[in-house]
Amino acid sequence: MELFAVDDIPEIEPGDDLAALIRERVDLRPDDVVCVASTVVSKTEGRIADLDDFPAGPRAREIAARLSELDDREKDPRFAQAVLEESVELLMESPFLLTETRFGHVGVNAGIDRSNVPGGDLLLLPKRPSESAAGIQEELPADQVIVTDTCGRPFRYGQRGVAIGWDGMPASRDWRGQLDRDGREMGVTVQNVIDELAAAANLVAGEGNGGTPVVVVRGFEFGDLPGSQNHFRELEGDYVRQALRGWSHNPQEGEA
Amino acid sequence: MELFAVDDIPEIEPGDDLAALIRERVDLRPDDVVCVASTVVSKTEGRIADLDDFPAGPRAREIAARLSELDDREKDPRFAQAVLEESVELLMESPFLLTETRFGHVGVNAGIDRSNVPGGDLLLLPKRPSESAAGIQEELPADQVIVTDTCGRPFRYGQRGVAIGWDGMPASRDWRGQLDRDGREMGVTVQNVIDELAAAANLVAGEGNGGTPVVVVRGFEFGDLPGSQNHFRELEGDYVRQALRGWSHNPQEGEA
Ligand SMILES: Nc1nc2c(ncn2[C@@H]2O[C@H](COP(=O)(O)OP(=O)(O)O)[C@@H](O)[C@H]2O)c(=O)[nH]1
Ligand SMILES: Nc1nc2c(ncn2[C@@H]2O[C@H](COP(=O)(O)OP(=O)(O)O)[C@@H](O)[C@H]2O)c(=O)[nH]1
Ligand SMILES: [Mn+2]
Ligand SMILES: [Mn+2]
Ligand SMILES: [Mn+2]
Ligand SMILES: [Mn+2]
Repeated sequence: MELFAVDDIPEIEPGDDLAALIRERVDLRPDDVVCVASTVVSKTEGRIADLDDFPAGPRAREIAARLSELDDREKDPRFAQAVLEESVELLMESPFLLTETRFGHVGVNAGIDRSNVPGGDLLLLPKRPSESAAGIQEELPADQVIVTDTCGRPFRYGQRGVAIGWDGMPASRDWRGQLDRDGREMGVTVQNVIDELAAAANLVAGEGNGGTPVVVVRGFEFGDLPGSQNHFRELEGDYVRQALRGWSHNPQEGEA
Repeated sequence: MELFAVDDIPEIEPGDDLAALIRERVDLRPDDVVCVASTVVSKTEGRIADLDDFPAGPRAREIAARLSELDDREKDPRFAQAVLEESVELLMESPFLLTETRFGHVGVNAGIDRSNVPGGDLLLLPKRPSESAAGIQEELPADQVIVTDTCGRPFRYGQRGVAIGWDGMPASRDWRGQLDRDGREMGVTVQNVIDELAAAANLVAGEGNGGTPVVVVRGFEFGDLPGSQNHFRELEGDYVRQALRGWSHNPQEGEA
């Protein structure tokens, strides 16, 4: 399996034909997986916004005031408003905003970026990243497209690449019922390959001004296994989400 | 960047020299990252156990009884005892056991596997996976070694490869203070590259009886960035962990 970045992608503007820009720069094969950073998908879809587009309501002002108290830096209530508008549920409102976006992804600040946003204050995630992936895939010789983002997670430090949209492949490969080396049936193993592919792509794309938002994975073999399209957990079965429902942040707690 | 599995690794037995088995099968370069599945590290370290090695105390019996009630299958109290003995904290005891292992990793059942364990009932994770990684690295021409496992996570379905031990490289690359494409300093971006490498390796290793527990990553460039060795979060700053402290599972909650 091989991963390489597509070189010389220009600065992406609203309305750009991302698939054409990719096609012109790389000879793709049908079984390639093309991983595209959400940043550039958002740019082509015109998801650049200004803080002034989000006049803050009372809820956003309350949230921003609480967050401003926590550290010394003033938080912009318009930013909180943008996060609320991009979300269907607020899982945590202090010490940061953890929400479920309209398409099911749980992340901090609804994935709104304030980096790599020339020409605006904010870059919102694509509205329906799997539809974005399908639109790009249609115009590419490669059969599989993943839209990626970078985000943090509980229990482990740092951020890693994740898939937020995908097309042309299942989200997971399902090893249940396969035999292990001891001839024993495996019980619980569903391997989320799109997140693993996104993580791998992020090693090549990086986070800075490297300018490599498109990474091709060549030679990945899904194998002859059943697939599953489940990717974002529902509340049922997501016990951490259930725990967060009853919890509120106490700045004293958990300090040494 | 390229990933390939090391072929023809035999069934690993306690005491086997894993580094020698790898060295004989692949021409490694100094800048390769060698990802080794915890399964085979555990086997060389004799971490195979029988349920009878863990006579259940009252706590384990209580836990197993509660778990048995939840679904129809009888849970073995000796298994709960093994999980408790491998852990320093129980984060969730229903509907499954989520614990912090002695080396800091948060996972279900303390990462104890019941698959791919010829010759025993249980395979425990290596005691100190970063020391295991260092021991293997010392005997390899490659400078970087990661010990991997597969585990699930909140919010997202399925499992993915993660790093539980590493040597010869930082856990994360720290983009803070670097400039983005807009000349803006990036604030919060710490990229956990060892987890991303482990996820990538898992795409090649798979979960079944494929027999590819060792994957080489060639051509990964850490780049000229500061590194951080933080990998497992402390309670302070891990709000999900704090939320789990006050929570207990209610089988009715979260159901449709
Ligand atoms: N060529 C090019 N690269 C971009 C553009 N926008 C972002 N990038 C690069 O894409 C990569 C990922 O950017 P990032 O902001 O981390 O995207 P995210 O992970 O989807 O939030 C970085 O290497 C950026 O330099 C663009 O418009 N053109
Ligand atoms: N050659 C060989 N492969 C093994 C052995 N044990 C496990 N594997 C393979 O290593 C891969 C990962 O195994 P798995 O049990 O998922 O390891 P884990 O992710 O560390 O828990 C699979 O392809 C297994 O078939 C062994 O002793 N020898
Ligand atoms: Mn982003
Ligand atoms: Mn990123
Ligand atoms: Mn395991
Ligand atoms: Mn595995």
